[in-house]
Amino acid sequence: MATTHTLVLLRHGQSTWNLENIFTGWTDVPLSAAGEDEARDSGRLMADAGIEFDVVHTSVLRRAIDTASLSLNEMGLGWIPVVRHWRLNERHYGDLQGLNKKETADKHGHDQVQIWRRAYATAPPALDPADDRHPAKDRRYRNLPPELLPATECLADVVERMLPYWYDRIVPDLVEGKTVLVVAHGNSLRALVKHLDGISDDEIPSLNIPTGVPLRYELDDDMRAVSSGYLGDPEAIAAAAHAVATQAG
Amino acid sequence: MATTHTLVLLRHGQSTWNLENIFTGWTDVPLSAAGEDEARDSGRLMADAGIEFDVVHTSVLRRAIDTASLSLNEMGLGWIPVVRHWRLNERHYGDLQGLNKKETADKHGHDQVQIWRRAYATAPPALDPADDRHPAKDRRYRNLPPELLPATECLADVVERMLPYWYDRIVPDLVEGKTVLVVAHGNSLRALVKHLDGISDDEIPSLNIPTGVPLRYELDDDMRAVSSGYLGDPEAIAAAAHAVATQAG
Repeated sequence: MATTHTLVLLRHGQSTWNLENIFTGWTDVPLSAAGEDEARDSGRLMADAGIEFDVVHTSVLRRAIDTASLSLNEMGLGWIPVVRHWRLNERHYGDLQGLNKKETADKHGHDQVQIWRRAYATAPPALDPADDRHPAKDRRYRNLPPELLPATECLADVVERMLPYWYDRIVPDLVEGKTVLVVAHGNSLRALVKHLDGISDDEIPSLNIPTGVPLRYELDDDMRAVSSGYLGDPEAIAAAAHAVATQAG
Repeated sequence: MATTHTLVLLRHGQSTWNLENIFTGWTDVPLSAAGEDEARDSGRLMADAGIEFDVVHTSVLRRAIDTASLSLNEMGLGWIPVVRHWRLNERHYGDLQGLNKKETADKHGHDQVQIWRRAYATAPPALDPADDRHPAKDRRYRNLPPELLPATECLADVVERMLPYWYDRIVPDLVEGKTVLVVAHGNSLRALVKHLDGISDDEIPSLNIPTGVPLRYELDDDMRAVSSGYLGDPEAIAAAAHAVATQAG
């Protein structure tokens, strides 16, 4: 019987801006206390499932980094190698970053905001390059050429910039026989799930990944999904998925 | 004027076993609440000094890993690359690991315990290879050949196993122009300071490195110390050094 490769995807828990209903994107906000609890709970779910990770990949945003630390510490695995990369960052939300979601809906209309949040190929208004919120102003991206730095992104953009990381950094770990954890964001993980599950551009807008619930894949040697499923209680997962459906970004 | 290379050494803060006066060594105990505060305080000291790290090296023990996360988060630098390696671990304390320091002194005599704690080339009694505390039983060392795994160590042993990491992993980062943080332990840092400052075998037993106080080096292109000094208030540093003089390991 062929052995499979184990990959687990984990979306970070509630951040302080989720709590305040603000568009976040690449803004580096910390987890809320509830988000820290979600991270620890997810660690216990993964430990109970008997998973032993060899390496973890995260974005360069602290809500993902801290979720990885908290969940892995819960498993006694806080010491495994970690790789942090901007290609796993949340979707860049452009000029909406830092704005209250309700106020934005009041100003631009609910339908327009829903398009920005959910349409596969329509990005929110772009940031001005001179804007302090632009990634060019952030020290963590200073070694990247300007054409790589987004001023806004739609999900299609995220798929395009995330996939090279999947192929070049995550797949080699899996091929080596490592069990891999990826801790990232609603949209970078939707981009990866779209690829792994072959979800169409039309169907992906309705896919929601709950926060703090590990999503386990078993992959064959060609990195095709043999099976996948969330860890934990099905009713709790359904409730979590419903909760995030109304709050993306 | 020649530019220098900036290296900062940071000893983790109080752990739960420091608090309970137990020999720790390679045992993977967490920071106490006071130790977490020390880590955050050290981050503020480094931020106030205007230091911007490019990379952090830690041991594979969580009291160092968590000190690195907490201090770097305080600086807004929790996203920088981290490398974790067993060669930066605390000295292995052999069969004393897990024993209360006072009870050990009562049993073996204060003088004998002082020799085990302080003599440069005398190691405590070794662990039996079958002992559950032996590193061979710990998943994090499972890919290492058995001859690398210590059953006990004196400081001379730590110098020998730490230096290859200095030369092969830390120096290349400094040569590339990176500003480097090393978060480690009382004895792995004493070993590094012995090397950097050219301290003799006879003098090193009396050197104490305080916990949670960043020690900054400026190094020339040959990796020789041009200058070095602790960050922060001199009186507080002296008090911290005195406090650890009575509690090593």
